[in-house]
Amino acid sequence: MRFPPLAEAEAPSLRELAEGFRSGKLSPAAHLAALEKRFLEVEPVLQSFVPEYRDRFARLRADLESLEAAAPNPGSRPPLFGVPVGVKDIYNVDGFRTQAGSRLPPDALKGPEAACLRPLRRAGCLILGKTVTTEFAYFAPGPTRNPHDPERTPGGSSSGSAAAVAAGLTPLALGTQTIGSTLRPAAYCGVVGFKPSYGRIPLEGIIPLSPSADHVGIFVRSVEDAGFAASLLIPDWSGSSEPLPRVFGVPEGPYLEKASPETLAHFREVCLRLSAAGMRLRSLDLFPDIAEIVRRHNTLVAAEAAHVHRALFAEFGSLYHEKTADLIRRGQEVDAAELKACRAGRLSLRAALEKRMTEEGISGFLCPSATGPAPAGLAGTGDPVMNLPWTHAGLPCLSLPSGMVGGLPVGLQFVGPFSSDRRLLKTAEGLAEALRARP
Amino acid sequence: MRFPPLAEAEAPSLRELAEGFRSGKLSPAAHLAALEKRFLEVEPVLQSFVPEYRDRFARLRADLESLEAAAPNPGSRPPLFGVPVGVKDIYNVDGFRTQAGSRLPPDALKGPEAACLRPLRRAGCLILGKTVTTEFAYFAPGPTRNPHDPERTPGGSSSGSAAAVAAGLTPLALGTQTIGSTLRPAAYCGVVGFKPSYGRIPLEGIIPLSPSADHVGIFVRSVEDAGFAASLLIPDWSGSSEPLPRVFGVPEGPYLEKASPETLAHFREVCLRLSAAGMRLRSLDLFPDIAEIVRRHNTLVAAEAAHVHRALFAEFGSLYHEKTADLIRRGQEVDAAELKACRAGRLSLRAALEKRMTEEGISGFLCPSATGPAPAGLAGTGDPVMNLPWTHAGLPCLSLPSGMVGGLPVGLQFVGPFSSDRRLLKTAEGLAEALRARP
Repeated sequence: MRFPPLAEAEAPSLRELAEGFRSGKLSPAAHLAALEKRFLEVEPVLQSFVPEYRDRFARLRADLESLEAAAPNPGSRPPLFGVPVGVKDIYNVDGFRTQAGSRLPPDALKGPEAACLRPLRRAGCLILGKTVTTEFAYFAPGPTRNPHDPERTPGGSSSGSAAAVAAGLTPLALGTQTIGSTLRPAAYCGVVGFKPSYGRIPLEGIIPLSPSADHVGIFVRSVEDAGFAASLLIPDWSGSSEPLPRVFGVPEGPYLEKASPETLAHFREVCLRLSAAGMRLRSLDLFPDIAEIVRRHNTLVAAEAAHVHRALFAEFGSLYHEKTADLIRRGQEVDAAELKACRAGRLSLRAALEKRMTEEGISGFLCPSATGPAPAGLAGTGDPVMNLPWTHAGLPCLSLPSGMVGGLPVGLQFVGPFSSDRRLLKTAEGLAEALRARP
Repeated sequence: MRFPPLAEAEAPSLRELAEGFRSGKLSPAAHLAALEKRFLEVEPVLQSFVPEYRDRFARLRADLESLEAAAPNPGSRPPLFGVPVGVKDIYNVDGFRTQAGSRLPPDALKGPEAACLRPLRRAGCLILGKTVTTEFAYFAPGPTRNPHDPERTPGGSSSGSAAAVAAGLTPLALGTQTIGSTLRPAAYCGVVGFKPSYGRIPLEGIIPLSPSADHVGIFVRSVEDAGFAASLLIPDWSGSSEPLPRVFGVPEGPYLEKASPETLAHFREVCLRLSAAGMRLRSLDLFPDIAEIVRRHNTLVAAEAAHVHRALFAEFGSLYHEKTADLIRRGQEVDAAELKACRAGRLSLRAALEKRMTEEGISGFLCPSATGPAPAGLAGTGDPVMNLPWTHAGLPCLSLPSGMVGGLPVGLQFVGPFSSDRRLLKTAEGLAEALRARP
């Protein structure tokens, strides 16, 4: 191994930093200095952030000084005071160029700052930078490496966000998920990824890929951090925070069998440990029609991407990566009736899954977060099929690290009822605790 | 056009800066400050330099202070005092990582600083940074755009060196040429590119692609600047500087016909202007066997690349771009007898061309520097065929901007006898002057 160690198990959590900076027990300036050292050490190899072409840390020190001038007393500091946040480069962010992993002209994608950043800004965060995304959040990868093995993909499309959190460069990074762009890279990089219910976090100011399937995604280092970030990001954070009953379904059948034998064996072992911790797991046949769901979702994404990119692709088509151009060309062939059927399919799948949960008396589903650990090479970003049906249905999903397969991290995917985000996160704390209790 | 203007016609030349800084008439610090402004303006779009992940200009100011401390009096300053130089990222340069446009681990390519940098360092240059190269100087492109049209390739493999000089970011950049990696990007970007005779500038410390075909290449803004740079870079800069007789051959036949009709029409017009200026041009049939020369050169490059990369490719093959991996796999199939024949072909072609020059009473050959202007898109770097036979023969070649085709720069390629570098450059001054004299 001739790469420097990139993964960082000991980095402080989001809440540790936030509480430390607010209470005055930790110094944001000292943290920034340590972060600069780590950044210069790992980032030339990791490439999780888009280069800034200015002195990033001089800019961050100035940003921090402004925050300190506005809130000189620790007692009066907002909840994310001085906490670094990475933002996927498909969000418009004031003071940053939006390139979306593409070769488009610098102003082609500019626009008002993403609406979901408002509460983070108000909470006093520091924007550490734009994180690397695949082109337009589809499949053409950027340069980011996997911190656990630099010769492997970090997954995508939120490649940089997942890698940056895993490398300890930031305790919170924002991404998106249209097929499997949050949970898959979170699993590959050994961090927690959370995709709330469809529509819970506003998408304004984020370059769309497929508006009917796009979700904001959150990368953090623990389930508790996911809850803390969600409480700031989700505008309507009310309702019960009671954990859901500890009864879960395991979706047997052609869907689950898409996981590799090693990954499936690991998942079975995880299920045994959860059972031993008092959870009830019910096997049930699910997604016998997975091929049709995949077809429908991919058709939806292609058709909507073609629509979203119509003007840009007409003007700058030659600058698009082949993979994205193929998607758009495929999408141009989808007729209105088919697109309508695909969109309707989302709601019927959601209804079918919710009905199933009620009938079976389960609080949600457990399954692997990806078909295996991060595949070798940087030319692809891995297979999102384990995430696809849940994204299609718009259900809230969380991936938490569940152990190692072949020396690489893999994740457990937990999917709950629509709009149960807060309860799902509370429930996931119990799952994480059960996984931590080593057999 | 939504890109900021990137090409810079008014930037100072290498000699202007060098003479100004030495004499004390220009301030290197003031130039650096202006350069920083321009760099931050154009580089996020142009991407001609490899990102540094530190404050490039703070580092450059410190470098300049060291130079000034060593030579406080303008009178005692060395010839390149404070002059910025860009160096293609396949050169090992002290204080910089060598990535060679690849995804290999940071230390995989490290080594002692390239030998040819010693005279530039001694002459007091400032290393502005590493310029973007295609992967291992072959065909997998980096992110650099063409300053004359950001939706077009700058050419390759010395993409960043050509673009940086055209954008006025540096008056001198180093590249290499194994097939057409200096003259083609120079032509596409509207700058002067010079590839001396094979072996004239030492290659130690440059990551090889094909040692029998690799040459150091020079990018500057004028023929005079090429001469000045060559006088520093070529260790044995003695011999005649008398211009060659103004009689040149135009290589008609299947080789010349590889140029596009528009480019050929432009070239014919250039020839008429040169004739009007008193040059004698002789049409002659040349390279009826161009297909065989191309096959032989490409086989040579593949076989030698496979050899050079044997250990790295065995260890890191999954990190190689498909285009480079294909080259290496093709090269692995070449047997020793064929490789030997390809290598011998270089010398027999050189001998045949020199014999032809003597027989025809010509000082060299004139032809287009590329088959056309820069092609659209950033996925490829254009066709090097116009440069290939001359590179194969190891003859010195220079490309100088000869005008515009379809609103984009194209170049005139001038090829001279082996080892005539100094006379060739002197002769090219006359060609440039004749081209400047508008009809």
